[in-house]
Amino acid sequence: MTLECPMPQTEFDIITLGHGSGGQLSAKLLQQFVFNELTNPLLATQHDGAVFEAHGTLAFSTDSYVVNPIFFPGGNIGDLAINGTLNDLAMCGATPKYLSLSFILEDGLPIQDFWRIIQTIKRICIEQKVWIITGDTKVVEKGKGDKIFINTSGIGFVNAKASLSAARVEIDDCVMVSHAIGFHGISILSQREGLQFETEIKSDTRCVSSIVQACLERYGQDIKWLRDPTRGGVATSLNELAEAIDFGISIEENALKVDGLVKGACSLFGLDPLFVANEGVFIAVVSPAIAEDMVLFLQNNKESELAFILGKICADHPKKLTLKSKIGGRRVVTKLLGDQLPRIC
Amino acid sequence: MTLECPMPQTEFDIITLGHGSGGQLSAKLLQQFVFNELTNPLLATQHDGAVFEAHGTLAFSTDSYVVNPIFFPGGNIGDLAINGTLNDLAMCGATPKYLSLSFILEDGLPIQDFWRIIQTIKRICIEQKVWIITGDTKVVEKGKGDKIFINTSGIGFVNAKASLSAARVEIDDCVMVSHAIGFHGISILSQREGLQFETEIKSDTRCVSSIVQACLERYGQDIKWLRDPTRGGVATSLNELAEAIDFGISIEENALKVDGLVKGACSLFGLDPLFVANEGVFIAVVSPAIAEDMVLFLQNNKESELAFILGKICADHPKKLTLKSKIGGRRVVTKLLGDQLPRIC
Repeated sequence: MTLECPMPQTEFDIITLGHGSGGQLSAKLLQQFVFNELTNPLLATQHDGAVFEAHGTLAFSTDSYVVNPIFFPGGNIGDLAINGTLNDLAMCGATPKYLSLSFILEDGLPIQDFWRIIQTIKRICIEQKVWIITGDTKVVEKGKGDKIFINTSGIGFVNAKASLSAARVEIDDCVMVSHAIGFHGISILSQREGLQFETEIKSDTRCVSSIVQACLERYGQDIKWLRDPTRGGVATSLNELAEAIDFGISIEENALKVDGLVKGACSLFGLDPLFVANEGVFIAVVSPAIAEDMVLFLQNNKESELAFILGKICADHPKKLTLKSKIGGRRVVTKLLGDQLPRIC
Repeated sequence: MTLECPMPQTEFDIITLGHGSGGQLSAKLLQQFVFNELTNPLLATQHDGAVFEAHGTLAFSTDSYVVNPIFFPGGNIGDLAINGTLNDLAMCGATPKYLSLSFILEDGLPIQDFWRIIQTIKRICIEQKVWIITGDTKVVEKGKGDKIFINTSGIGFVNAKASLSAARVEIDDCVMVSHAIGFHGISILSQREGLQFETEIKSDTRCVSSIVQACLERYGQDIKWLRDPTRGGVATSLNELAEAIDFGISIEENALKVDGLVKGACSLFGLDPLFVANEGVFIAVVSPAIAEDMVLFLQNNKESELAFILGKICADHPKKLTLKSKIGGRRVVTKLLGDQLPRIC
């Protein structure tokens, strides 16, 4: 249970179309719920845009979040929206610094839900030392949205030691995964289907920025490629890498770490954990020289204590991802055609 | 009638949930409709984020667009989404350079509509020399969205001659408006209400970046404050300025330029044009020394040929916006409480 600041007194207990009009209602909502809570010197200018100084290499990323349900075990749409964009920046080798925050609210959203989401956003911004510096709020009629959609875009400063590119990936490089997979997708699906397991399966939503920066500081150019396997899971991210290089990617079913509860739920739903979304996991392709050391280093950090080596880059089956099964057979793992799980993030 | 490239052959004629899954359908849609069309070297990396060099003062802005209908006289949601964010950056004194583009599509959106919107986005990006460098696409179920919502966030480079801040506004500074007001709001409302006027009232959606940069080059620090009066119109923007300064703002009804058709429609709908949304107009507060010259300069440019001086900063009625009516009375113009026109942008 996270302690939250008490919600300010308001004259309204739901969001209405008037809150998106740019008039007094909009101004009051923004002042009480956004500007007062997410305060920083740049946001305080309350302009349509924020102005800052930058010297160096920047990363820029955007994501819209439409997850259903908006509250789930382990987090809410606010965690996803902030962690997701911070993680995308981390995958570019960047330390996140500035975020934009844009809401599309549905008429009728309980103001208490909006408050809880803002409090989550506030907590992560403080923890991760990032500032929300510009934003937008729109309201749509009932039945023209779904409670709340959030877009975050982010700007980060790329670590000078980072040199991340599929073009640098070579044969024998190791494919490492930072944590056990499948928690987020299974958490959302269990909620939606109303399934109860012995223990609640929590989303793994978390910010991996600090641990990624620590790795870049320590291993520099030996880290060649980073990606967070969200929608479509590990198999989709590795398929994208395989398409971008002239080699194959070979992974081992035996090496895969999947929590027992997640594995059970996957069987129940008929899902392959390799395709299930994660929100706090990253894949790193690294030179073999540092692979063992980096796995140990990751395992010594809470965010990545279950890190493991999943496979390697190989000459066989160029541009394909292949999986060696537990009984020794090898098969090609392709991208899924359509949706495994809609509105997972 | 704008000529558009023919739409590529597709196996689907509507957007489905599978297009938002991160699998093969997503990849195909993005490749054919987004990457091939909005191509540039940074987008081509197809990473979750884009990396670029920056040295100087940057502006960062975001907006989500939920306009209904998505096609209207004079433009579509694509024009709004790009022009709107470019204009927000322009109001910070910045030349826009990089944009993110994020879609929330409703299951069932005709693929032809998506194509038309992408073509509009492509055209404006080429005209304005900006690059879409990162993006995202989500799909929600029928009845959980409304055809298409677009978020754009933008990064621009602030002109070294710009010094824009409400704190620099002084008594006797002139309040200038770059064009006749009210076109966008009335265009949308007429469409929604199914009203036909003798001549179609077109949205004024346009990018004002070039003309703003030309003014900043010419007048530098004599331009003290800029804002584009979108949602809530000129009266809302000027109220926000009034709250931020210790002076009053006095405007003249006689000076106001409103097109005859827009004026007629406003009467019909019971709207005050001062509160109607614009999408191609900016307000500039400038020192009196350059005001006359700047109006003439603006009038010599197509984007701002109806520029006019609306009023000035004064000592009376501090923190209030007051309007001198045609018959000479003066009244305070406050912000609207709630919505005049929901989903106008």
